[in-house]
Amino acid sequence: MITGKNYIGNTTTANGNKTFKTFNPQKNTENEWAFTEATSADVNKACELAANAFKTYSKVSGAKKAEFLRAIATEIENLGEELLNVYCLESGLPAGRAAGERGRTLSQLRSFANHVEEGSWVEATIDTAQPDREPLPKVDLRKMNVSLGPVVVFGASNFPLAFSTAGGDTAAALAAGCPVIVKSHPMHAGTGELVSSAIIKAAEKTGMPNGVFSNLNSSGIEVGQELVQNSNVKAVAFTGSLNGGRALYDLAAKRDEPIPVFAEMGSINPVVILPKALENRASDIAKTYAGSITLGTGQFCTNPGLILAIKSEGLTNFVNTLAEEIVNIEPSCMLHPNIAGAYEKNKEKALSQNGIDILAEHSENVQPNFAKQVVTTVEGKTFLENETLHHEVFGPYSLVVQCKGEAELREIISKLEGQLTGTVISDDTEISNYVDVIHELENRVGRIIFNGVPTGVEVCPSMLHGGPYPASTDSRFTAVGVDAIKRFVRPFSFQDWPNELLPAALKNENPLGILRTVNGKKTTKKI
Amino acid sequence: MITGKNYIGNTTTANGNKTFKTFNPQKNTENEWAFTEATSADVNKACELAANAFKTYSKVSGAKKAEFLRAIATEIENLGEELLNVYCLESGLPAGRAAGERGRTLSQLRSFANHVEEGSWVEATIDTAQPDREPLPKVDLRKMNVSLGPVVVFGASNFPLAFSTAGGDTAAALAAGCPVIVKSHPMHAGTGELVSSAIIKAAEKTGMPNGVFSNLNSSGIEVGQELVQNSNVKAVAFTGSLNGGRALYDLAAKRDEPIPVFAEMGSINPVVILPKALENRASDIAKTYAGSITLGTGQFCTNPGLILAIKSEGLTNFVNTLAEEIVNIEPSCMLHPNIAGAYEKNKEKALSQNGIDILAEHSENVQPNFAKQVVTTVEGKTFLENETLHHEVFGPYSLVVQCKGEAELREIISKLEGQLTGTVISDDTEISNYVDVIHELENRVGRIIFNGVPTGVEVCPSMLHGGPYPASTDSRFTAVGVDAIKRFVRPFSFQDWPNELLPAALKNENPLGILRTVNGKKTTKKI
Repeated sequence: MITGKNYIGNTTTANGNKTFKTFNPQKNTENEWAFTEATSADVNKACELAANAFKTYSKVSGAKKAEFLRAIATEIENLGEELLNVYCLESGLPAGRAAGERGRTLSQLRSFANHVEEGSWVEATIDTAQPDREPLPKVDLRKMNVSLGPVVVFGASNFPLAFSTAGGDTAAALAAGCPVIVKSHPMHAGTGELVSSAIIKAAEKTGMPNGVFSNLNSSGIEVGQELVQNSNVKAVAFTGSLNGGRALYDLAAKRDEPIPVFAEMGSINPVVILPKALENRASDIAKTYAGSITLGTGQFCTNPGLILAIKSEGLTNFVNTLAEEIVNIEPSCMLHPNIAGAYEKNKEKALSQNGIDILAEHSENVQPNFAKQVVTTVEGKTFLENETLHHEVFGPYSLVVQCKGEAELREIISKLEGQLTGTVISDDTEISNYVDVIHELENRVGRIIFNGVPTGVEVCPSMLHGGPYPASTDSRFTAVGVDAIKRFVRPFSFQDWPNELLPAALKNENPLGILRTVNGKKTTKKI
Repeated sequence: MITGKNYIGNTTTANGNKTFKTFNPQKNTENEWAFTEATSADVNKACELAANAFKTYSKVSGAKKAEFLRAIATEIENLGEELLNVYCLESGLPAGRAAGERGRTLSQLRSFANHVEEGSWVEATIDTAQPDREPLPKVDLRKMNVSLGPVVVFGASNFPLAFSTAGGDTAAALAAGCPVIVKSHPMHAGTGELVSSAIIKAAEKTGMPNGVFSNLNSSGIEVGQELVQNSNVKAVAFTGSLNGGRALYDLAAKRDEPIPVFAEMGSINPVVILPKALENRASDIAKTYAGSITLGTGQFCTNPGLILAIKSEGLTNFVNTLAEEIVNIEPSCMLHPNIAGAYEKNKEKALSQNGIDILAEHSENVQPNFAKQVVTTVEGKTFLENETLHHEVFGPYSLVVQCKGEAELREIISKLEGQLTGTVISDDTEISNYVDVIHELENRVGRIIFNGVPTGVEVCPSMLHGGPYPASTDSRFTAVGVDAIKRFVRPFSFQDWPNELLPAALKNENPLGILRTVNGKKTTKKI
């Protein structure tokens, strides 16, 4: 049952005098539940509880954290159909997507559980003492990753489950030993509350300290600002717009004690189609990309918003087929009227730029909040001269840039902002002739794809989801996959520390049986 | 021979119309050489060359980078006595320290050479494809660390070799595949020029691209500011004051594309002495600490500036012995008149605070630029109420805080700023009675030491040199040891990339024979 209250640790509150409702974009009506905005006192209380919980939670064993994470997954499953229904009512996304995203969320929680249960992720490194070393004895030093402190997670509008309340950021932070305070996304506050109830149940059942998790409702920006500025908070994770992410980054950087902000922001995910691929299979590529551009109403952060190719007959065939295919796809619902409105506004701005030609636009009337997909094209030179064209239009929109040659293609790539992904469509051998183009692309992205589509982010250890700014605020970390845990830890050294007082991961006898680096060698042996 | 010129890649320049000289603090006179300030054009040129060099240098093999790093070490050795002489003339440090610090610098360069030659540091992670997976096929994903881009290194005043021109930051960045631009420290610009000549020789001998290294002279702050703001620069390493480090951090955070700044700044390195240790061996501890406080004229970043203990007869014995011992130590020379002047000023400020008692102060006349060591004491309550007492006095100064009990001791630790180190002096068993005190201390530091002194930073993989702000701007990385390379890389994923085009570290056949994570298992086997 949805109450509209905040979770301040395991207590629910509704102290504020402002409420807001979520919106059903499919029906174009408000949903029934009223959510009470968190107050400044709620923010302070949640942060204090988190700081206090950190003292014990940061020392909880990997096995116990795994139990907690698995219990969260079980409790989310126990929410049953209600969760999937509310998800759909608050996002306009179809039931299949709801079930799929829940599956991904559960598997993320369980993969972090396995990761911390196994335990080698702490990167234990041991250099034993050499008391007889000349000219000075060598001390005993042992290093491992320890948790950073309370983490604030901002729910993402486009992933109500997998990147929100118990999504990848929360799972990574809890796995790292950091209490989490979620600033719930106002577009799916009901989904967030249900998932929060599951997390709190799991925390209570597995004996985790009060304050290990809180969930704050807010439709404005103040609660988020207060959270980022609270001195008990030690890191921030955010998925959303460039404006929002940068504002939080700036706030965090201005603190007396600056803290890391992991903001995953916009990206236009350039796709480079090489000439022979266009010559041999322009039509197939166009069909595939018509699907990728409109997948999830273009609301994935890896949506291919920019297609780059050198002018040729093949490119003409490609754009013609893309135009035909894209209008045949049935328009679908966006997440919220605000997002549909922003899509229209940004699309109009892009379409009004000099030199932009519309290749195809879905022209029939659509229901409110449904997006009409558009593909456009422009000359390489015009694209280079107009930075407006380099920015994301969040939704089912893509721009095909027609370059006059390889040099222009390379220059365009070198001038792009940082991106989550870059894709190369190539016939098997021709890519070897474009080494410099590929190197430029590598410098601008976090993940490079061969003969595929950027949409579809596999959750596995080799995934890097992030990239040079502004794709993310810190290209040195991934937001997807178990390595996301690295965002919320710091290495810590013990010098000549008594064995019985060392954490299990660093004890001589290696009671956890983890893989460690001992005097320069990887081993699971005891010392 | 010292020319006073800048190195812009492998070209020397003296385009500026301002010059400055270094200073011999032992003789209290200027040194003979005049150094020409780098101009804005020099800054831009060095950054452009670095960006261009990055294109090839980032692809250089580990074996070739190792050759380059070892050649730098050899060329530094080839500078012979001249380097050690200039070091002493510019720092006032003794000849033994010069030789020792050169040895450390060479061994750092060679340890990074070994690290990148072996190659497993790139953390290659491979998840092979599962084309038959249901409901969707799994793509092939391979991740490894790649270099971040040109790095600006600020030379440190207190380590003219080991944390300056070819010091730990430069060695780590070059090992990572990043070109380096050094903002030479104006107090030892001659030492810096000699070392730069060695780096340039090594780069030419091993065929590294022009621009892989530059060295810019400057006695002001503008050159450093311009470097940090240059869009070709992708990371900054700095060792120095809180004011300096924070100013650079703020500049970097305000860029259109914010970049990471690794600033290692001040620290007072709290030492907690437990009651039984004081009861049993107050005098021995005092003697040891009199040495640690005055080591290198108190100019190490790990100098013990704060000693915390609970009032007892043992503590009275400790402070009395510390007072006797400290004045018996011969005063020594500071690095520069500015540093000696700042020591006097900061010391006077500390001594003028209410409730501060001087335990001992070296009172005889000393030569110019020599530091008179001081130890003071204060009540716990007074320390808690006056934040001025929490700040570093850079030099041979330490403050003993006398706490009324364990609760006050713990509260004091919880209120300290972030620190590089924390030390616990304990008799073997009593530490188990102070678990909460130790946990508070762990939260405030990067390295914790049992029954030792914080001075003496062992260079080995298990060392963490860094800590919560303001000890450093990013507690998630170390400035000492081979893991310092992690500051200058980002993970990068290849999806379905053709084997022949993958970097060697990720190819099926594992030609480098490195340890990789393949489908979740650590292995050196081919796929």
